Amino acid sequence: MKPMHIGLLGVGTVGGGTHEVLRRNREEIARRAGREIVVRVAAARNLDKARRVLGPDIDLTDDPFKVVAHPDIEIVAELIGGTDLARDLVLAAIENGKHVVTANKALLAEHGNEIFGAAQQRGVSVAFEAAVAGGIPIIKALREGLTANQIQWVAGIINGTTNYILSEMRDTGAAFEEVLKTAQSLGYAEADPTFDIEGVDAAHKLAIISALAFGIPIQLDKVHVEGISNLARVDISNAEEFGYRIKLLGITKRVADGIEMRVHPTLIPHRRLIANVEGAMNAVLVKGDAVGPTLYYGAGAGAEPTASAVIADLVDVTRMHTADPDHRVPHSAFRPDQLSDIAVLPMGEVQSCYYLRVPVFDRPGVLADITRILADRKISIEAMLQREPAADEEEVNIIFLTHMTKEKEMNAAIEKIEALPVTTGSITRIRIESLDGK
Amino acid sequence: MKPMHIGLLGVGTVGGGTHEVLRRNREEIARRAGREIVVRVAAARNLDKARRVLGPDIDLTDDPFKVVAHPDIEIVAELIGGTDLARDLVLAAIENGKHVVTANKALLAEHGNEIFGAAQQRGVSVAFEAAVAGGIPIIKALREGLTANQIQWVAGIINGTTNYILSEMRDTGAAFEEVLKTAQSLGYAEADPTFDIEGVDAAHKLAIISALAFGIPIQLDKVHVEGISNLARVDISNAEEFGYRIKLLGITKRVADGIEMRVHPTLIPHRRLIANVEGAMNAVLVKGDAVGPTLYYGAGAGAEPTASAVIADLVDVTRMHTADPDHRVPHSAFRPDQLSDIAVLPMGEVQSCYYLRVPVFDRPGVLADITRILADRKISIEAMLQREPAADEEEVNIIFLTHMTKEKEMNAAIEKIEALPVTTGSITRIRIESLDGK
Repeated sequence: MKPMHIGLLGVGTVGGGTHEVLRRNREEIARRAGREIVVRVAAARNLDKARRVLGPDIDLTDDPFKVVAHPDIEIVAELIGGTDLARDLVLAAIENGKHVVTANKALLAEHGNEIFGAAQQRGVSVAFEAAVAGGIPIIKALREGLTANQIQWVAGIINGTTNYILSEMRDTGAAFEEVLKTAQSLGYAEADPTFDIEGVDAAHKLAIISALAFGIPIQLDKVHVEGISNLARVDISNAEEFGYRIKLLGITKRVADGIEMRVHPTLIPHRRLIANVEGAMNAVLVKGDAVGPTLYYGAGAGAEPTASAVIADLVDVTRMHTADPDHRVPHSAFRPDQLSDIAVLPMGEVQSCYYLRVPVFDRPGVLADITRILADRKISIEAMLQREPAADEEEVNIIFLTHMTKEKEMNAAIEKIEALPVTTGSITRIRIESLDGK
Repeated sequence: MKPMHIGLLGVGTVGGGTHEVLRRNREEIARRAGREIVVRVAAARNLDKARRVLGPDIDLTDDPFKVVAHPDIEIVAELIGGTDLARDLVLAAIENGKHVVTANKALLAEHGNEIFGAAQQRGVSVAFEAAVAGGIPIIKALREGLTANQIQWVAGIINGTTNYILSEMRDTGAAFEEVLKTAQSLGYAEADPTFDIEGVDAAHKLAIISALAFGIPIQLDKVHVEGISNLARVDISNAEEFGYRIKLLGITKRVADGIEMRVHPTLIPHRRLIANVEGAMNAVLVKGDAVGPTLYYGAGAGAEPTASAVIADLVDVTRMHTADPDHRVPHSAFRPDQLSDIAVLPMGEVQSCYYLRVPVFDRPGVLADITRILADRKISIEAMLQREPAADEEEVNIIFLTHMTKEKEMNAAIEKIEALPVTTGSITRIRIESLDGK
């Protein structure tokens, strides 16, 4: 049988890795897919570099629109990143009747609904396993492995850079800025790390996960996002003392009134498997009503882990080539005419437990004032910690862990506590998730 | 579109759970699958009980052969267990052109090659996600999620009963027999627990995993099997002291000379995620050459977790209904004409590190005698532990952790050490796996 011909857009880290793994495991992949899968033509900005990476046998062009229009190409692998050119190319490929495989989470988070709609109309597949959690087959788990379930919630460590930084802060006791520098020197963080450390990358992935879990459109603008750049060492060690680890989680949850979508630092009980995911690794915990909790762990980035997901998609498309479009796995897990318009909750309506660090003057009555404010909002306290101040200090931190309350109640209470004359600065507020299956 | 009609063989725990989840999540499942999936007819031995479980709307029969021949049925779900009647029914269903979904690991471990061959010839699918690790979509990960990779090894906690017993032994310090009784009273272990505790159930699953990972036929008779019934408390606490946990692992590995397949208690470094999988949960660690290590965790048994996997298969078959058979996902991950006859290694050729507990009289020269025997076999020692004997004891245990060596060298050394006049009993030998990606 003649090989399946791939057109590659982009010969960077992922494009190079994809070519390398396709080449190295060519025989093994063909034994699974039923046909050889080979890169036939590639588009790159730097043709000399691309030639060195791809070797002599692959046609090269600096015009990516030639690739998406190439008559021999059946699948286009979009690995250039970005959202403008990538969108035009993917839509053009679809228009030309090509299947598309993409690793581009930003593209799908921003234009996924449009792209899936165009693909559906044209009868081609857009596959995107590599867009979320790198080599972990989490898209497949959500779209195919857990189809029996009402998904109740998903909580994931879906950004390796931030998990590396948090792991190092905990292990070494170093401050955020210091660890960030190490991460940059090791290649775990970009020169401009904003995208990762402020939670934007995680939000892209969460918007996609949430759509697949609940059968809703992708709604990036409704994700509540907080990063880790304000996280202090003292909060990590305080959390530790109460038996928690702090992780940047992407959380999406179905509650009575709608869907929660949020990315923020989170205290997790240290006994949970996901609390022990260290370094740049990713893990996604999915709770289904029938299966209970399941966890998927692996490398969330890197040339070959990402290539692993890209190629899994290429094999899927190759295997399913003859299925009529109506019988393929739907892009969003649910069939396009079966999406739900259930509301995404504003953050104020989200319920959570909280860790609070309140900096105060060490005076009589402080605790009474604070606990009165919490009680007025019906926020009950689960645990409290106050250490004796250092000899020459009159400031002290009081730590509270609270029971479940609505975020808007907590925000109002925090505002009142911060207005107390004894409060010396901003309150640090970190949400807590027990992830215990409820 | 008319519903997909299922014929159910068996209305026990899994059959009842499957019906319940299909009923409860009917709408959600139809939104994903494109058609409703409903049980049309079921076969059970106890018709009264089945009627109570399934309600009034489903045809019932005590003749399962009527189900596999039923003209309205497109998929037969075989959930009766056992290998004789189940084999006849599955082969009859295939012969009648029905797709088959089964949760029966013993059936596939013993007759999988024959069943897959028959299905291939008849152009129908046999799906079996529920046969390995319950609700965890590990079959899908191996057959579809990791198709880019040369799988290097798989190591799994694939029997919940034994993992529950080992977790409890470690947590409570209780002996095996004692914990087994608790497990039986809680329903985690059968009245006759042999199948689980001697590793037979894990061996069934491992034979299937190995076939999918490496593209080889299912070869149950070549799995080396050791259970946990001889495991002593002292070995669990000794392991702990060296920084290890003991788990019953199913391990299959591709090495230069062939394939390893083995089920046995194993020391694992306690920092590994899989070492922290507690209670009756399952987890499978898969190492691919491109993706690196990935882990899949969840409930390995129980009515609804198993139903989750059964129904995922029903949805897969429903979605892929029109794909021509040649383009479906192959039963064994690799296409049937692409299986490999690479040898399964006899256990003597398998390399491993070892934990040894040698009971000896506390006499001068003992250590010299033992280490000489190990050195003669080129077995080098990584760590050693000998405590002072209790006041009234002249016997003492010496613990060795060794570097890698071939099992046959280790066996020969053990035989020689046991023959020493100072050795007071059998040596306890437990293999160690670092699972560090190599």
